[in-house]
Amino acid sequence: MDYKPTKRGVCTEGFKAYGVRDGKYGVAVVKADQVCDSVGVFTRNSVKAAPVTLSKRAVKNGLQAVVANSGNANACVSHGMEDAMDVMKAASLEMGVHTRNIAVASTGIIGRPMDVNKVVGLMKFSSARLSCSGKASIEAAKAIMTTDTFPKQYSIEHEGIQVGGILKGAGMIAPDMATMLCFITTNADVSRGVMQKSLSDAVGGSFNMTVVDGDMSTNDVVLLLSNRRRKCSPGLFKSMLSNVCVGLCRQMAVDGEGASKFIEFNVNGGGSVVEARKAAKAVASSPLVKTAFYGENPNWGRILASIGSVVSIDYRKVSIVFESDKGAAVLLKNGVMGDLKQARKILKSSEITVTVNLSKGRYSATSWGCDMTPEYVMINAGYN
Amino acid sequence: MDYKPTKRGVCTEGFKAYGVRDGKYGVAVVKADQVCDSVGVFTRNSVKAAPVTLSKRAVKNGLQAVVANSGNANACVSHGMEDAMDVMKAASLEMGVHTRNIAVASTGIIGRPMDVNKVVGLMKFSSARLSCSGKASIEAAKAIMTTDTFPKQYSIEHEGIQVGGILKGAGMIAPDMATMLCFITTNADVSRGVMQKSLSDAVGGSFNMTVVDGDMSTNDVVLLLSNRRRKCSPGLFKSMLSNVCVGLCRQMAVDGEGASKFIEFNVNGGGSVVEARKAAKAVASSPLVKTAFYGENPNWGRILASIGSVVSIDYRKVSIVFESDKGAAVLLKNGVMGDLKQARKILKSSEITVTVNLSKGRYSATSWGCDMTPEYVMINAGYN
Repeated sequence: MDYKPTKRGVCTEGFKAYGVRDGKYGVAVVKADQVCDSVGVFTRNSVKAAPVTLSKRAVKNGLQAVVANSGNANACVSHGMEDAMDVMKAASLEMGVHTRNIAVASTGIIGRPMDVNKVVGLMKFSSARLSCSGKASIEAAKAIMTTDTFPKQYSIEHEGIQVGGILKGAGMIAPDMATMLCFITTNADVSRGVMQKSLSDAVGGSFNMTVVDGDMSTNDVVLLLSNRRRKCSPGLFKSMLSNVCVGLCRQMAVDGEGASKFIEFNVNGGGSVVEARKAAKAVASSPLVKTAFYGENPNWGRILASIGSVVSIDYRKVSIVFESDKGAAVLLKNGVMGDLKQARKILKSSEITVTVNLSKGRYSATSWGCDMTPEYVMINAGYN
Repeated sequence: MDYKPTKRGVCTEGFKAYGVRDGKYGVAVVKADQVCDSVGVFTRNSVKAAPVTLSKRAVKNGLQAVVANSGNANACVSHGMEDAMDVMKAASLEMGVHTRNIAVASTGIIGRPMDVNKVVGLMKFSSARLSCSGKASIEAAKAIMTTDTFPKQYSIEHEGIQVGGILKGAGMIAPDMATMLCFITTNADVSRGVMQKSLSDAVGGSFNMTVVDGDMSTNDVVLLLSNRRRKCSPGLFKSMLSNVCVGLCRQMAVDGEGASKFIEFNVNGGGSVVEARKAAKAVASSPLVKTAFYGENPNWGRILASIGSVVSIDYRKVSIVFESDKGAAVLLKNGVMGDLKQARKILKSSEITVTVNLSKGRYSATSWGCDMTPEYVMINAGYN
């Protein structure tokens, strides 16, 4: 179902936000008018940043505030725990919220001590300016950007229910570790169990189909806070949350590091959901596919090979279609090559949809990705 | 154990070779004086090129000749089987070898019909010039190059036993599909069972630690032919074969597409061989690690994070050392950051050894890789 987008971002009913940057560092603050029910999805990397460990605990208590900084990951440093707790304590004093109800999150370089005074200073600045508006949400989204080229927020409203969030993504879109921070708020009155299940499902069909999954950064975190002000059916909430996650995801893929093209990969005809997802993810992750898109090269052989390496397929039954604002082209129909000239035209677009039909079953999956460019390499060679 | 390298390449006792190129196409021929015992390791990609299917059968009969072409993969085309058989038949007539004892292999673009007349013509040219010399082996290695920048061969001799081969590699060094063709010959008299076991083990500790594994191209093949002329213990053979595979592997990593640095990753202190191999492969495959090496950026955080995403580690017990002709630098010792200034010096070298100690157990593994450069992207954007 499609929902009407709003401009609130993370500032849904009962939530305020703000953010500020100073040089490499930036701090975003999100604050609720009351302690909220909250759930999270956290990195599965065995090397975890200190704030991840602390926030996992706080989420269980229920959150009233989130403080997130860019500029330093606070990971793999000897005083990481103490530093993260110092930020929590300062935020507690500043905002009158118990430390047990505050989550902290960090993104940036690993293994270097965080400038705690700087982070606390920016937190105070942001806390003093908290407001409930789309503009304040944008400031918060800006504060946590690293190699992102634009702030990311997405929010919707349906029958009084609001769901909205901000995201810091970028990084290479699969297959490696670029930290993703995402904070989502809602006024939907659903149980904590429904919140957790809906978030896990939404992440599985959105963020896990773009960046994360087995390969997660040391700092990845998605938090969901609900003040439960409005009655909502579990089904509607699940659908709205999934819609917001996909909306944020698409922006993350558009803003892949150095990316010049956004690509949506639909895999139809999978023998199972798992198979369709595996195939969709493999093709979006393949450097050879990604570089071919950069080169505007309709190399369907690479698409087939990337899928064939993870899923058993018979290429003679496979069809591949490219679509964009320039039209559609059938590259492969039941294993027979189609119109590459038309495909080359479509590859000149900056947003392309690739649909692969495996003709095995009735399951589908979608992944989001981008091309791989020389700029991607330059950005990551110089990042420190 | 170290063995004395020879210059024979694939032309060990009783084997002849030659090769020639014409434009995009090239053909290498390797021919034995007699039908040989033979074994192979083939791509596990579910999309297989026609020559792979045919050669899998021929290997069981015992091989006397191998015909390999570059310029076209003969994969995912409707007449692939017929085209590959036409090459086999022509080679059979030309060399007086039964088709059942001929293997064919192809590398190049997928999904376009192969120019069979061209391949047959070059096969005839090469067959007429077969000789047993290192120079002839080099010509064969040259003929199967695609984006390789130099021909690859490696051969050793020990107590009369000779093992040697040629390789076509390049491609991105992990994590995607770049076709690898490798042909190895020997005079060692060991059973077919020992040959198969030794080859599988050698591939597991060499090629699978650089390019392949789950993600294989449609055309990957490693063939081993033995004329069994000299008595040899299984242990010696296994050791020599492994040595040759590692020798070829290292050249493949040095010649990674667009690579400016060759990197050997040693992981020590793994809890098991599987764990050590997983860790070694993860770090060599990480685009973030690879781009950091290109940028001469001692980003040990990315090394930790790539390993932590596949293996459970406690970073406070991990040590990381860089070595090159410029000396050694400890980047991390039991989780504490060391001398990054010295590490930056070492990163200026074109060959770097990275040793990671996980301090979990007594198992080790080595992987080989290269940096990721803007040239890698340009090569693969333009390849068609």
